[in-house]
Amino acid sequence: MNIAILTFEGFNELDSFIAFGILNRMRNSGWNIQITCPTDKVTSMNGVTIEAQQRLEYANTADVVLFGSGINTRDIANDDSILNRLKLDSQKQVVCAQCSGTLLLAKLGLLGDLPACTDLTSKPWVIEAGIEVLNQPFSAKDNIATAGGCLSSQYLATWIIAKLAGEEPASSAIYYVSPVGEKEKYVEHCLSVVSPFVSNFK
Amino acid sequence: MNIAILTFEGFNELDSFIAFGILNRMRNSGWNIQITCPTDKVTSMNGVTIEAQQRLEYANTADVVLFGSGINTRDIANDDSILNRLKLDSQKQVVCAQCSGTLLLAKLGLLGDLPACTDLTSKPWVIEAGIEVLNQPFSAKDNIATAGGCLSSQYLATWIIAKLAGEEPASSAIYYVSPVGEKEKYVEHCLSVVSPFVSNFK
Repeated sequence: MNIAILTFEGFNELDSFIAFGILNRMRNSGWNIQITCPTDKVTSMNGVTIEAQQRLEYANTADVVLFGSGINTRDIANDDSILNRLKLDSQKQVVCAQCSGTLLLAKLGLLGDLPACTDLTSKPWVIEAGIEVLNQPFSAKDNIATAGGCLSSQYLATWIIAKLAGEEPASSAIYYVSPVGEKEKYVEHCLSVVSPFVSNFK
Repeated sequence: MNIAILTFEGFNELDSFIAFGILNRMRNSGWNIQITCPTDKVTSMNGVTIEAQQRLEYANTADVVLFGSGINTRDIANDDSILNRLKLDSQKQVVCAQCSGTLLLAKLGLLGDLPACTDLTSKPWVIEAGIEVLNQPFSAKDNIATAGGCLSSQYLATWIIAKLAGEEPASSAIYYVSPVGEKEKYVEHCLSVVSPFVSNFK
């Protein structure tokens, strides 16, 4: 299971690293989660420079592609030198977006007429791209999922694990990362957010 | 306001970057949050290499020092070449720890006889270091705070902002990063976790 977390210049640290950390709870089950960037290095919106684990083309053969968010997404949405490197297929790949990443899904034509989630700042841009924006943290249909609000990354990660490995490993991953003394409640809530979208599991 | 997030080789991405992302909501108020490392670069427990924004000695003059967590903390707790570079003073500095970072607070003698929070994996090591471990996500007294479970980072960040800038900016930061459709509930919960420790505000 190869998972590409698309992480661009000016990226939001929460939106790439929360999903990355939670999904890596599956590393011992053979999952391979990779921070995937257009260039060798990218610098976050708050000034942390990281080295890419993979270059952008890795996404084209990954099993799961997760678009992170950031302060440059509107520019990236109009930058064919980046977008043309992506050849994704939601029939074969699970494709997800976090916050402003939803705008890139829209721009790449991957949402079709699906309504989607995004953050409050990105909402007008996503609407402008012709997408209905939902007032909820998470939504999914078939192989496409979107989440809105940085900390909704936990729901995106829960859904990916639940969809591809089942409810027990999803519960186990959230249990591990959740606050001490709140773990049962946290797991229950995360599962309750994604479970309406479990009926669409393949 | 200078804040050092101590981030070591083998660091847990959630434990450094959730607090970093939330605290940076205060950047426009002049807060300066810095990923602070023993070396120019460190690689996370899941293989992402990042560039330090500051070297370890920066912590000695920072207003707030937050010890992150990671897979090498037990080694670091016995590595004087790292620990001797830290000269912290909890009379003048706010000193916090996330998960296994609590072991480093204990080792540096910063906890005194305070009970503390940590994650379930680190719990036996922290007990072995002579510290009573609490079954709760967050605890604080005066200038010392500890949190247990990766996602408790949000409580640590809430407390730091509430303590040093007040309840309104803390609410505002959590509101921004929280899931769409759950924002009011999220803010209320974060504040409820830290509010018992607000009576100790200076």
